[in-house]
Amino acid sequence: MAVKTTTLDNGLRIITDDIPGILSATVGLWVEVGARYESPEVNGISHFLEHMAFKGTTTRTAKQIAEEIESVGGHLNAYTSKENTAYHARVLEHDVPLALEIIADIIQNSTFDPSEVNRERHVILQEIGQTQDTPDDIIFDYFQETAFPNHSLGRPILGSPDNVRRIQQDDLKTYMSQEYSSSRMIFAATGAINHEKIVELCQKHFSQLSNHETKTYDKSSYRGGHFYENRKLEQIHLVLGFESCPYGHPDYYPLSVFSSLLGGGMSSRLFQEVREKRGLVYSVYSFNTAFRDSGIFGIYAGTGEAQVGELLPTIRNVLADFPQTLEDKEIARSKAQLKAAILMSLESTSSRCEQLAQQMMIYKRPIPPQEIIEKVNAVTRENLIGVAQKLLANNPTFVAIGPGKEIRWS
Amino acid sequence: MAVKTTTLDNGLRIITDDIPGILSATVGLWVEVGARYESPEVNGISHFLEHMAFKGTTTRTAKQIAEEIESVGGHLNAYTSKENTAYHARVLEHDVPLALEIIADIIQNSTFDPSEVNRERHVILQEIGQTQDTPDDIIFDYFQETAFPNHSLGRPILGSPDNVRRIQQDDLKTYMSQEYSSSRMIFAATGAINHEKIVELCQKHFSQLSNHETKTYDKSSYRGGHFYENRKLEQIHLVLGFESCPYGHPDYYPLSVFSSLLGGGMSSRLFQEVREKRGLVYSVYSFNTAFRDSGIFGIYAGTGEAQVGELLPTIRNVLADFPQTLEDKEIARSKAQLKAAILMSLESTSSRCEQLAQQMMIYKRPIPPQEIIEKVNAVTRENLIGVAQKLLANNPTFVAIGPGKEIRWS
Repeated sequence: MAVKTTTLDNGLRIITDDIPGILSATVGLWVEVGARYESPEVNGISHFLEHMAFKGTTTRTAKQIAEEIESVGGHLNAYTSKENTAYHARVLEHDVPLALEIIADIIQNSTFDPSEVNRERHVILQEIGQTQDTPDDIIFDYFQETAFPNHSLGRPILGSPDNVRRIQQDDLKTYMSQEYSSSRMIFAATGAINHEKIVELCQKHFSQLSNHETKTYDKSSYRGGHFYENRKLEQIHLVLGFESCPYGHPDYYPLSVFSSLLGGGMSSRLFQEVREKRGLVYSVYSFNTAFRDSGIFGIYAGTGEAQVGELLPTIRNVLADFPQTLEDKEIARSKAQLKAAILMSLESTSSRCEQLAQQMMIYKRPIPPQEIIEKVNAVTRENLIGVAQKLLANNPTFVAIGPGKEIRWS
Repeated sequence: MAVKTTTLDNGLRIITDDIPGILSATVGLWVEVGARYESPEVNGISHFLEHMAFKGTTTRTAKQIAEEIESVGGHLNAYTSKENTAYHARVLEHDVPLALEIIADIIQNSTFDPSEVNRERHVILQEIGQTQDTPDDIIFDYFQETAFPNHSLGRPILGSPDNVRRIQQDDLKTYMSQEYSSSRMIFAATGAINHEKIVELCQKHFSQLSNHETKTYDKSSYRGGHFYENRKLEQIHLVLGFESCPYGHPDYYPLSVFSSLLGGGMSSRLFQEVREKRGLVYSVYSFNTAFRDSGIFGIYAGTGEAQVGELLPTIRNVLADFPQTLEDKEIARSKAQLKAAILMSLESTSSRCEQLAQQMMIYKRPIPPQEIIEKVNAVTRENLIGVAQKLLANNPTFVAIGPGKEIRWS
């Protein structure tokens, strides 16, 4: 591993990891912009803008963008989350300069042609429809909305259909010029790359980016609550959650270990109790998602109408029993799982690229895998019980979609 | 790359690829057993058996299986398809012997305890419910069923709920002893492994496997047809398909290039025409799936009720125009995409392991990447037009789920 960082004069941060023996590379631009930075009136605009980045620049049509990257067998993709937008490509070694130049072009020279905006609006409306039709997708929108009502962390990344119908070229141009400051960007490259060459290319293609002040996000305000949607389905899909902690918080690694032993794998408490012992579900798992100033811990399960009456008290007991029955070998196992996952993630150019970009955005520096492993190792039994009890003392968030009468957590 | 193969006395074939500079390994057993080998009465049993492999052996409980692999940070997983069942693990280098031994144990010494069978039955019923609730999952079951009616290729991998309710310990034991012959198995290992060591471990743990005659599959019989399910959804999800060709057929690579240029990426004809130009969908793509003696080519799209009237003629035109408007640069681009995908897949231990096992099952030997690249290179314009016209002359299969009145392809 050879992680190197450089900052350009305009504040753009570059991070690379040259992985030997690999034929391909992942390169991408990560921007600290997402649903989190949107007012209710423009909710969905970060995602709309990400879509429009593929729809034509001053020198390339949408079709040319697609053709240029795919004619060398590369993939160009993008995503928008609550706090970030990423534009990334996977290509063979020789095509790294092309991928970088295309990314630079689409985020600096997109024209947002009104007829393209209109067409893309329909694509996004279809994307919203697809999410609506997938219960174990849409439930996470309901979950965030119930956990953080009337707050940007609670609003959907795709935005409401009304907003998507309303957004115009000017809105996109204004939002981009205001929010896409070089100081909020990380360019990351991993695999068959060379740091000096990447820096040189970034200097050439990203130096014109303006570094200006941008607005910040509203302080998070977790509230929690209850939501139920009656829908004619085979299963009741549910998520139970609690506020957890932001990145960098001392509880972060204890909560990661807790999530792993509660619902992280086949040997986890929930999997063993809910699926293996009782056969109540096919899917059950827990997750711990951090944001910049908050976090959310949750449990997902999908069960039948006849089984939900047994499922809820079972989950309740698993959560209540935990401090009394916690075994040291369980803690050791969860730590081993987290540590192996860290080591294995180093082998994929795309997960490594994502990881380094996130570390630069959140911690302002790359975190050596050994440092993370030491933090995982340092988690004690007392930490675990302490953070879990604090977590579960929160006001819960409980959302469900499915057939039958309304179910409640409390 | 250092691909090596060895066959044990009982016919078990071993294939490895020792990838330097990698910390982890993927190891797994692939068995030529799946829905394809099932009679209608036991449809679902291959998948049921795969689930039961995790539910306890003569020396390990279900919980011990999960705990042993996860206590070293490993993952153990399995899947069942139409023609195969696979049990595979990803572990760090040191834990390869443990992973191999656990896989050997679960596929030779599972007890299928009746109370575990009963519990797992409920898990699988939940899995069926989850598939039913996901339109872009269940539509592929409808698609196979309509393409191959009353044939094992048309029956769902999970089986019917009735079959799942009926299968008992004895059925599982009988099916396993009949179908799990060592001659139908491949052990594959990639990453941080050593061929001789893997062979030695396989000799120790798999030598007792019986090599006996097993039944073969029924000859495929594609028919095609029409299916529509009215469901209250935001989108109409549809799949249009045609019979294609088996593995190893001369049309296989021309059809792969055709699929790539028709619906393989952002620059493909369908993506450009249906999404980029008309904004009718968020997802549209094509696929070409080979079986041992047949294959199926398809196009998936998800659209709105108001858009479907424009979508169907658009797809029809894209298919009809193709021979007249095919450009050489399009062919070159699709070939570049396929070739880059081949090279990139070598970098992941898990995709490489899957690939080598499939090659051994289908072609009885590892296929060097260069050989595949040459076959892709050899595809001509005439090939492409020829295979596409032959394909589209088939009786189509058309299935859709969604709101509104029934839609038909023809």
